[in-house]
Amino acid sequence: MSGTDRSVTPILGGPAVVLVAPQLGENIGFAARAMVNCGLTDLRLVRPRDGWPSPQAEAAAAGALDVLAPVRVHETTGEAVADLSRVYATTARRRDLDQVVVTPGQAAAEMRALGADGGDAGVLFGAERSGLHNDDMALADAAITVPLNPAFSSLNLGQAVLVVAYEWFRSGDDTPARTRTDTGEPQAPKEAVLRLMHHLEQALDRATFFKVPANRPAMVRALRVWLTRSAPTEQEARTLHGVVTALSGHRLDGERRGQRRLPQGGDSD
Amino acid sequence: MSGTDRSVTPILGGPAVVLVAPQLGENIGFAARAMVNCGLTDLRLVRPRDGWPSPQAEAAAAGALDVLAPVRVHETTGEAVADLSRVYATTARRRDLDQVVVTPGQAAAEMRALGADGGDAGVLFGAERSGLHNDDMALADAAITVPLNPAFSSLNLGQAVLVVAYEWFRSGDDTPARTRTDTGEPQAPKEAVLRLMHHLEQALDRATFFKVPANRPAMVRALRVWLTRSAPTEQEARTLHGVVTALSGHRLDGERRGQRRLPQGGDSD
Repeated sequence: MSGTDRSVTPILGGPAVVLVAPQLGENIGFAARAMVNCGLTDLRLVRPRDGWPSPQAEAAAAGALDVLAPVRVHETTGEAVADLSRVYATTARRRDLDQVVVTPGQAAAEMRALGADGGDAGVLFGAERSGLHNDDMALADAAITVPLNPAFSSLNLGQAVLVVAYEWFRSGDDTPARTRTDTGEPQAPKEAVLRLMHHLEQALDRATFFKVPANRPAMVRALRVWLTRSAPTEQEARTLHGVVTALSGHRLDGERRGQRRLPQGGDSD
Repeated sequence: MSGTDRSVTPILGGPAVVLVAPQLGENIGFAARAMVNCGLTDLRLVRPRDGWPSPQAEAAAAGALDVLAPVRVHETTGEAVADLSRVYATTARRRDLDQVVVTPGQAAAEMRALGADGGDAGVLFGAERSGLHNDDMALADAAITVPLNPAFSSLNLGQAVLVVAYEWFRSGDDTPARTRTDTGEPQAPKEAVLRLMHHLEQALDRATFFKVPANRPAMVRALRVWLTRSAPTEQEARTLHGVVTALSGHRLDGERRGQRRLPQGGDSD
């Protein structure tokens, strides 16, 4: 359960997930887990083949059933969606129904907009093998088809729920696309990087690394670009000073050694 | 297997998926299936606990192992990524490593850009319970963390692979966000919708539906907006003419009936 923080209040709400005639309890459990992963809590079952509650679902849900709102069980799909103002129906295949078809991302955006207006939405998922009946499709305002490899587009039930639920979470999520772990260790200021670079240049001069003096400026610039891109922390800059000192000390002893591993600790100034 | 078209050439290529010390063959199979769903074919295993090949993986993969490139098995993570020029490592939890962290969508965009430059990328996934070791994280150019409900963010292995692979497919996919099934049935031209509306208005006039003449224009406009939004096909427009005729015929008989179901077939002109 790495990554799960029980001290954080779970995100609740979002569209209902309606599983129509699901066969395996295990798949209901996987669907429940995917829902809670993505902040959905309203699970409804229409005629679950193996009954409800289900020990198999409980095991596969990895605790998710405790976070969901009480699961509702219905005899018909119509009854299951009666209180919703918009319904989507997932399907992997083209139907002979003249219906709007949306991507999961589009459905998520539409359901967010509806929710902001106070409307409740739900998404229908069919049975493992057969999918939804056309009579269920006809209850839906739009079909959702997940764009996938056309040669191999069959998702299992839990995975189909995950993709739709993930797009729901994603559509309301503002996680920065690219960031850097905050370890509490400050990144080295430019001054420290320049000092480190200066130290390295001096050591390389002593080691007669720059055989052709005319090439020295370009080589120094290339090393500076590389060192800057590595964006060292203050601690890393200190460690690297130690590395340069250690290596150039060996050189001054007249000893040639191969490249050595960056020490875990060591002389840090 | 609905939705899978064996006659279509599978999409091949994309980043490598590297499962480090996976425990259950079943999860390797689910991962393989998710990969092929999303057009990925390069699966590499580092020290799979239960060995390779695996009958459990074969069963869970639902045919995906036949589509993958031959699965490579390695002793070390370093060996598994040796030929790659960029490596991402998935983790649900913050590590005490000063590392770039990206969303799956950002990773997909970066891997697409790298691929366009001829570089090969791969994504590491850790063992079911423990995730990746920090020594494996240190091999990665960046960590991938899936933004999820912080109170319940643990994905199982197959689902983690699905999210990363789905974002890969999504980043190269141009499926329109909203479209309409092409059933071959043309949408009715505006002329047909206007004729239908005119037919309905005449029938409603005969039935003295418009009690207050001053309100007639606004009510007609409201019905017209609704009818236009329903965007009927030519066949639907013909059926609806029949519906109006049938209902107004009953009315002309002086008989009052409740609303009836739209007939499946019936008088269509």
